[in-house]
Amino acid sequence: MPGEKKYIEVCFSPLLFDIIQDKTAIVVIVDILRATSAICTAFEHGVNKLIPVETLEEAKKYKEKGYLVAAERDGIVKDFADFGNSPFNFSREKIEGKDIAYSTTNGTQTIQKAKNYYKVVIGAYLNIDALVEWLIKQNRNVVILCAGWKGRFNIEDSLFAGTLTMRLLENNNFYTVCDSAHAAMELWKNASKNISDFIEKAAQRHRLRKNNLDDVIPFCFSTGFTKIIPQFSEGYLLDSRKLN
Amino acid sequence: MPGEKKYIEVCFSPLLFDIIQDKTAIVVIVDILRATSAICTAFEHGVNKLIPVETLEEAKKYKEKGYLVAAERDGIVKDFADFGNSPFNFSREKIEGKDIAYSTTNGTQTIQKAKNYYKVVIGAYLNIDALVEWLIKQNRNVVILCAGWKGRFNIEDSLFAGTLTMRLLENNNFYTVCDSAHAAMELWKNASKNISDFIEKAAQRHRLRKNNLDDVIPFCFSTGFTKIIPQFSEGYLLDSRKLN
Repeated sequence: MPGEKKYIEVCFSPLLFDIIQDKTAIVVIVDILRATSAICTAFEHGVNKLIPVETLEEAKKYKEKGYLVAAERDGIVKDFADFGNSPFNFSREKIEGKDIAYSTTNGTQTIQKAKNYYKVVIGAYLNIDALVEWLIKQNRNVVILCAGWKGRFNIEDSLFAGTLTMRLLENNNFYTVCDSAHAAMELWKNASKNISDFIEKAAQRHRLRKNNLDDVIPFCFSTGFTKIIPQFSEGYLLDSRKLN
Repeated sequence: MPGEKKYIEVCFSPLLFDIIQDKTAIVVIVDILRATSAICTAFEHGVNKLIPVETLEEAKKYKEKGYLVAAERDGIVKDFADFGNSPFNFSREKIEGKDIAYSTTNGTQTIQKAKNYYKVVIGAYLNIDALVEWLIKQNRNVVILCAGWKGRFNIEDSLFAGTLTMRLLENNNFYTVCDSAHAAMELWKNASKNISDFIEKAAQRHRLRKNNLDDVIPFCFSTGFTKIIPQFSEGYLLDSRKLN
């Protein structure tokens, strides 16, 4: 309804998602290091659609059918796959106009969890400016669903939840009394002074460094890279402009 | 083993507790507003034992058997009960030497979840000084389990988790790479400057105010009230000094 303020809720883990009952909301899926950052990059570089698949077996079947496949577990590219989970994998020359099956440790399972909601979209720092504008236009309650790490709370997704909440609250159309949203904003307040220092606290930062995969971190925390909002619809991720 | 550092893990909700597998750890149950604060108060005022019961039906049966009963849901005392969940209910003249059956919205269910761990104890600001000393002596991994609110993350329990983590890390025998522990410490850093302002962000603060139950908040954030560590053992909460 016009005039009625819209509610922002933050969910720190897919394991906490079933508590939320408001199926009329828009769900923003967040997996900053690295799935949702990679997805935003893929769309900016012209991918046609992404097919999120939960298991590696499914991913393999897509490979056998001739699809390009992105598949990783714990940050490591699977040997049968064309790509892993690094945004730097998804270059325009490799992916423009293509369909890609995509399976990650935390990200794709999380997307599946939200599929019965009004709309499910992909959020990352890379598309946050466009996302804020789009969410304001949608005029709906918003649930920010952090993918976390194997069910656990993680710092990088919570930081993004804090940034997005703060940006939406600047618009007078939103409010929140959600403790997670307030906590996420506090984290972002502390982190925003020096992201690269703050992110040292994140376990995922150390996992990535161990595997020499931490080169993507500054990129994943940069804004304004793309105006595309990837949206989940009938089993696929598509550029939302093709859907609405 | 002596010489080996002990790990601190923070769990923001009972729904996230099953991910944690380290049954050799000590679990500290936290429900600052108000169950674990009330439990600490009861022991300081001489209660003999508390019997945590999950359902109101069980609580009623204890009442029929002649026990004193503390039972509340959503902050409101149940009509058959002798007490609710306010620490101020548990005065010495009412409870000294007695056994009390105790059921709360979030607290007692959370205790049951942890019962297969090495030890399960009750943490609150009221006993934090003694708790820190006791945990250092125990020389074990520590899991700080926040009761939250009906499965959700909450601010007040997370603040306590941050305070306790920080206090334990001051002792060189502990370490953490848990994102939740780091986030909790950040929250505490921001809150500690002005607790009564910060706690305005907590939904539970507003629930209590609505029911005129928020008089307990300054007390629940005060330290040094008791040296007792209530410990869960074979279905009861007892003063840990009677057990070890």
